[in-house]
Amino acid sequence: MPLSDTREISLEELQLAARNHGLPLEALRWPVTPAGLHYLLIHYDVPVVDAASWRLELGGLVEQPLSLSLDDLRARPHAEHAVTLECAGNGRARLTPRPVSQPWLHEAVGTAVWGGTPLAGLLEEAGLEPDAVEVLFTGLDRGVEGGEEQAYQRSLGLHDALMPDVLLAWEMNGEPLPPQHGAPLRLVVPGWYGMTSVKWLASVEAIGEPFRGYQMTAAYRYRDDEDEEGEPVTRIHPRALMAPPGIPDFFTRARTVPLGPVQLDGRAWSGLAPVVAVEVSTDGETWDGAQLERDVGGRWSWCRWTFGWDPPGPGDYVLRCRARDEDGNVQPDDPPWNLGGYAVNGVQRVPVSVR
Amino acid sequence: MPLSDTREISLEELQLAARNHGLPLEALRWPVTPAGLHYLLIHYDVPVVDAASWRLELGGLVEQPLSLSLDDLRARPHAEHAVTLECAGNGRARLTPRPVSQPWLHEAVGTAVWGGTPLAGLLEEAGLEPDAVEVLFTGLDRGVEGGEEQAYQRSLGLHDALMPDVLLAWEMNGEPLPPQHGAPLRLVVPGWYGMTSVKWLASVEAIGEPFRGYQMTAAYRYRDDEDEEGEPVTRIHPRALMAPPGIPDFFTRARTVPLGPVQLDGRAWSGLAPVVAVEVSTDGETWDGAQLERDVGGRWSWCRWTFGWDPPGPGDYVLRCRARDEDGNVQPDDPPWNLGGYAVNGVQRVPVSVR
Repeated sequence: MPLSDTREISLEELQLAARNHGLPLEALRWPVTPAGLHYLLIHYDVPVVDAASWRLELGGLVEQPLSLSLDDLRARPHAEHAVTLECAGNGRARLTPRPVSQPWLHEAVGTAVWGGTPLAGLLEEAGLEPDAVEVLFTGLDRGVEGGEEQAYQRSLGLHDALMPDVLLAWEMNGEPLPPQHGAPLRLVVPGWYGMTSVKWLASVEAIGEPFRGYQMTAAYRYRDDEDEEGEPVTRIHPRALMAPPGIPDFFTRARTVPLGPVQLDGRAWSGLAPVVAVEVSTDGETWDGAQLERDVGGRWSWCRWTFGWDPPGPGDYVLRCRARDEDGNVQPDDPPWNLGGYAVNGVQRVPVSVR
Repeated sequence: MPLSDTREISLEELQLAARNHGLPLEALRWPVTPAGLHYLLIHYDVPVVDAASWRLELGGLVEQPLSLSLDDLRARPHAEHAVTLECAGNGRARLTPRPVSQPWLHEAVGTAVWGGTPLAGLLEEAGLEPDAVEVLFTGLDRGVEGGEEQAYQRSLGLHDALMPDVLLAWEMNGEPLPPQHGAPLRLVVPGWYGMTSVKWLASVEAIGEPFRGYQMTAAYRYRDDEDEEGEPVTRIHPRALMAPPGIPDFFTRARTVPLGPVQLDGRAWSGLAPVVAVEVSTDGETWDGAQLERDVGGRWSWCRWTFGWDPPGPGDYVLRCRARDEDGNVQPDDPPWNLGGYAVNGVQRVPVSVR
């Protein structure tokens, strides 16, 4: 991925920012993100899919390949999970030098109730052969990346593919999947960054050796230069975000907060382990614990945090929040740098002017 | 509005681009834009509104002020109109020097079926007094703009406010209005740029002289410098857009098209008069007429255009399309410059590589 040393972003990055979008941070107030506010990253184009003639081909190293219409899938066991998805590149645009790609600041997140059927059930039904080691997911979206024409493809090891909460989903918040979120069918892998939850699924294939496609080996690796093989990007690192208090300036988004007690709030999540603490700093030095509230069901969704703040007087403040999960993973003050700009979960800073 | 002479966009512009978004151009294929793909411009924050206790206050120079709940509004006559809305700043980011604000390239458009009750009926019910000259619409979204703390406010002259197709809408595509599109109630003014269709309506007030608020006098004026009073931005100028053919490169969005006949298609609209022609150029010199199809009902929505193209051979081409309306308004090749970057409807250029 090319790098930029300038703070300004290029026309190419703007083109991506104009079509994909993040969650406006005031929308952190909703436990389940309303349709259209959930972050969106379309790798290529939203493909044209005729849902009536569409079929999912489930094959490869299985005893009984399946070819399933949407009605066939609906006849399988139904499950729903509230899942927080985050783009692996969230925070990328704050790095220096900046990996030039979709230029996320810190808003590439959202929570939806995904409805569909567990992938594990279908894999059992097809019968995995003993030499299968991974499951390969192929989307209907096609494009060119790294000079290579490709359909979007990602794989999962068997252990991860068989996790009971992994879904093939055709519903989002109780409605049919919208086109931009993968209609008619997408994968949803709770706890993992969004690139794993392949949209517009065409096929699911059990394979005998690790898939080495572009999205596994060239993209989505933690590494410092192109020559390193690096480590794969997998689960979501912890992050807390604040819904900025007060009112914004239209252009700068700088916040003005009236003097007096104010409740700060936001959301926190981690795909590595449940969030156990959110801390808030209003003076740049001390950190105090926020209240946590699990107002969305299940393990895989963000929790709400609240923090009462009584500013000591008028002036300029920088508010910060940070999450810690049960495994002791915490957010760093300064984002770790890597070539792709993945998992850049540095602490959010919200400058506010109290008047 | 400040200007930038560099091609690169600033962090402030990126912040706006990351939260607001345009229509991914492949979504031009849908006659009515699916939820979440319609362009979105939130001036300040999506406000917190309790729809149960919310009321619309309709007052000012009327004989009988009204205070209406959503149920009260639902008891009035119901109307639906398919309306193409476009942001007045669409195309701004292609200007040099560039007015720095929401940096739209050319995708700030969408078509929805808005459902609600005609404004004219409510104004008649309240009884406009003879000295009323304008109707002022106040939203619940608050922010700072031009150093001035304000609720978002726009006015319409009586003639425009009483147009029969102007709606107070609580439905979008048959569903309750989503929060980001103005729930619980918004104004929809067909044919006008989006800034007029005030979201999150709090009040409608008949007033005795032209409203001189920020969004009428400082913003949304055609002018070349701050000292000019300028002319108000009102109706949507003609524009045609193409759904880029072939497949994209992830980062540059450059298109690759396989050699052979290809159907080009897109949408065209004008708020000034119905679109009567779309022309396409594939060689940079000659223009040929495209087929027009009115696949959405009513006067206020875009039409579809299609054009068969058989590239003479492999190579690089720049595809162009332009709309003309019944009043003879046409798209210029090069966008007209103005300080706010409004109505920048220069012809779209789509570079493609045929292989």
